[in-house]
Amino acid sequence: MSKYNRIKEEAYHGNLQLPKLGLVLFTWGNVSVADHSEKVFAIKPSGVPYENLTVEEMVIVDFEGNVVEGKLRPSSDTPTHAVLYKHWNDVNSIVHTHSTYATAWAQSQLDIPILGTTHADHNTSDIPCAPPMSDEMIKGNYEYETGFQILNILKEKKLSHTEMEMVLIGNHAPFTWGKSAEKAVYNSAVLENVAKMAYLTKQINPNAPRLKDALINKHYERKHGTNAYYGQN
Amino acid sequence: MSKYNRIKEEAYHGNLQLPKLGLVLFTWGNVSVADHSEKVFAIKPSGVPYENLTVEEMVIVDFEGNVVEGKLRPSSDTPTHAVLYKHWNDVNSIVHTHSTYATAWAQSQLDIPILGTTHADHNTSDIPCAPPMSDEMIKGNYEYETGFQILNILKEKKLSHTEMEMVLIGNHAPFTWGKSAEKAVYNSAVLENVAKMAYLTKQINPNAPRLKDALINKHYERKHGTNAYYGQN
Amino acid sequence: MSKYNRIKEEAYHGNLQLPKLGLVLFTWGNVSVADHSEKVFAIKPSGVPYENLTVEEMVIVDFEGNVVEGKLRPSSDTPTHAVLYKHWNDVNSIVHTHSTYATAWAQSQLDIPILGTTHADHNTSDIPCAPPMSDEMIKGNYEYETGFQILNILKEKKLSHTEMEMVLIGNHAPFTWGKSAEKAVYNSAVLENVAKMAYLTKQINPNAPRLKDALINKHYERKHGTNAYYGQN
Amino acid sequence: MSKYNRIKEEAYHGNLQLPKLGLVLFTWGNVSVADHSEKVFAIKPSGVPYENLTVEEMVIVDFEGNVVEGKLRPSSDTPTHAVLYKHWNDVNSIVHTHSTYATAWAQSQLDIPILGTTHADHNTSDIPCAPPMSDEMIKGNYEYETGFQILNILKEKKLSHTEMEMVLIGNHAPFTWGKSAEKAVYNSAVLENVAKMAYLTKQINPNAPRLKDALINKHYERKHGTNAYYGQN
Repeated sequence: MSKYNRIKEEAYHGNLQLPKLGLVLFTWGNVSVADHSEKVFAIKPSGVPYENLTVEEMVIVDFEGNVVEGKLRPSSDTPTHAVLYKHWNDVNSIVHTHSTYATAWAQSQLDIPILGTTHADHNTSDIPCAPPMSDEMIKGNYEYETGFQILNILKEKKLSHTEMEMVLIGNHAPFTWGKSAEKAVYNSAVLENVAKMAYLTKQINPNAPRLKDALINKHYERKHGTNAYYGQN
Repeated sequence: MSKYNRIKEEAYHGNLQLPKLGLVLFTWGNVSVADHSEKVFAIKPSGVPYENLTVEEMVIVDFEGNVVEGKLRPSSDTPTHAVLYKHWNDVNSIVHTHSTYATAWAQSQLDIPILGTTHADHNTSDIPCAPPMSDEMIKGNYEYETGFQILNILKEKKLSHTEMEMVLIGNHAPFTWGKSAEKAVYNSAVLENVAKMAYLTKQINPNAPRLKDALINKHYERKHGTNAYYGQN
Repeated sequence: MSKYNRIKEEAYHGNLQLPKLGLVLFTWGNVSVADHSEKVFAIKPSGVPYENLTVEEMVIVDFEGNVVEGKLRPSSDTPTHAVLYKHWNDVNSIVHTHSTYATAWAQSQLDIPILGTTHADHNTSDIPCAPPMSDEMIKGNYEYETGFQILNILKEKKLSHTEMEMVLIGNHAPFTWGKSAEKAVYNSAVLENVAKMAYLTKQINPNAPRLKDALINKHYERKHGTNAYYGQN
Repeated sequence: MSKYNRIKEEAYHGNLQLPKLGLVLFTWGNVSVADHSEKVFAIKPSGVPYENLTVEEMVIVDFEGNVVEGKLRPSSDTPTHAVLYKHWNDVNSIVHTHSTYATAWAQSQLDIPILGTTHADHNTSDIPCAPPMSDEMIKGNYEYETGFQILNILKEKKLSHTEMEMVLIGNHAPFTWGKSAEKAVYNSAVLENVAKMAYLTKQINPNAPRLKDALINKHYERKHGTNAYYGQN
């Protein structure tokens, strides 16, 4: 059995959640799970349908994007995952999908405004949309540069990757991450749901106001603050 | 067996209806059932997935919001339920969800206008949306004040809680209630359906008129009047 | 066994199709099937969930709206069905639903414009929306008058009930009919699908033109003309 | 066993994918598979529900549209398939559906603009919508002329049928094709998904810009270029 079996299993189960949650069509999404002590991550092989996937087929890649173990080619988005793991040693899982509503916001090149408490239960600010890449970056190592797009937009918005665990890539689609595959996949579903609600809200009332600061703080604190009282922990 | 077993069972089965009716994602909703003779209610534990829930885990809380029985922390919305039961001795069940279309109207901070007979079969007026809470209320006992938001908006709109069994909390999401968990959950599904139809109607025809009074009265009377002829009772 | 067993069975199976096709929530729809030689029809009992329905429970009603056989109260829409059967001796089944997109058009009080061949495969003109009833009619025998609303809008639009088998009641919801329960239910699903496509088309392009006459005629003829070449008959 | 069994089987399995992928209601779609060495194709019989279909019932038709084998009448769209196979000897399967979002764009008579990488992973340009047919063509051999509508719009847009495997027929609905039934059906699902995302994007931001050329080229190349690195081939 592979010494990387733990992260291969976790990545495998995370990938299977994507079609169950309605976040992917065909093979359009991938989940990876990192082992920071070994500086590697397990990621879905490219173009393999979720229903045919096995734990064994998960590909092990190092933080430079080189395959360490596995017979299949890893997801074409692998360099993006590698860049993020290299920069974030407290992130253990990354998810990329083309989920419908989040992707529509990405194609709109607009941040998703914070309009209600569903959003505020998870984030204290708008969900940022990175502007499209420069032509030079595209012609270079494209997926590698996508990682820097994510790092740069967080920096520009003065957001830490631990408070904002989701970003839209303009013209493209979302990336989310978290402490575990379960949390990173959960964030993808949250993002899709918040994106749909924000879309509907703006259709019903184009002037719908942003959530007021007192409510933003209250909802975030009750779930994530030092005196959090949501959930069982 | 707990002396509160009847309400724990009813609350348990009510909570399981929420994912079946497509009204919740993950754990984002809760159903409670009250026993007014004992001045307590059974409510979902916070953050527990519906598929793992058991009757035993339902938490018993008194009308001041104190846990009376149960090992898990009750839903973070518990104080809202407590306030409403304390004020309404003829309401036996309360439901809170973040269902998509009802939440979009809440985020829009608009009442749902009465545009057709689907709405009028259940309510004789627009479904009210309470304005966002004042900053002082938010910083105080937030979920407790949410109960008063509901009481206040009904008072302001001159609506009794027995004729209007559903309210939107501006920026937040809906609450519904009824004589039983079955009825309160039914009201959540009605609200979501009416919210979707009102959204579509306003997209198709922004000038779609409110339902005329004669039709509002007719449809309400045939289902709820003294000569009601809808259903088998 | 009831002498009306044939129509009770057909009505029963027709009613079960409504939730399968996603056309109803809870009990919000009903299918009836007539026996013109006996001048009676079988209809769903009021307020009974589809999953609990039995053939035996279907109620037999005459064309004046009087119950002839059955222990349960018939659907509250029964007088509408009775009026239509009395006037149309070539219609064997009638369906009423509150399906989402068709109801949104009814609430919008707009005819569904003929925008494409999906519509033209079934109808050669816009699907008419009857204006709301006068207050006097509402206060009278409401469901009985709804039947006349349908007869009147077809007359006004110069449409025969055999070429246009579907109508929207303004502020209310759709009615469809046909030679059999299968066809009448099929028409309800067609209407819902055409209503959704027309809604989306007008959102994408508010100036989308009506289908040109040559195409309307062609599509209708290939399915329904004397030289029809669609299907196996 | 029929000498055409291979293409009958492939067409049969392709047709069954349409309802599974949510691309058809009732019988509103058809998949054909050609054998260019025999100059025939297998196609769905007209008006037969997918759940009742058998391999044996698939109809064999030559490239002039004449039935070669089979007891049932072929799909009414058969002449369109025949024209395309006659002109394209490198296309082995054609699919026609009335899928909701693609059909709404067809009814809008607008090309689907290339707004993001989901689109660019499959096509380097907008998905063309052919203008409605002239009245003379409609009155002639309508479905035969539909084949020429597709050939003409590709010619007009300077697109080869191997780079653009999907077209909208104005007022009507989409056609897609490919090397195999699997690929042609896949293209129908891609088109529906891209159509929905483009609709949502334009609702969120009517001024959403087209994807920049550098990104169009990059995404297409990584999936289809000589150095493609998407998938396992």
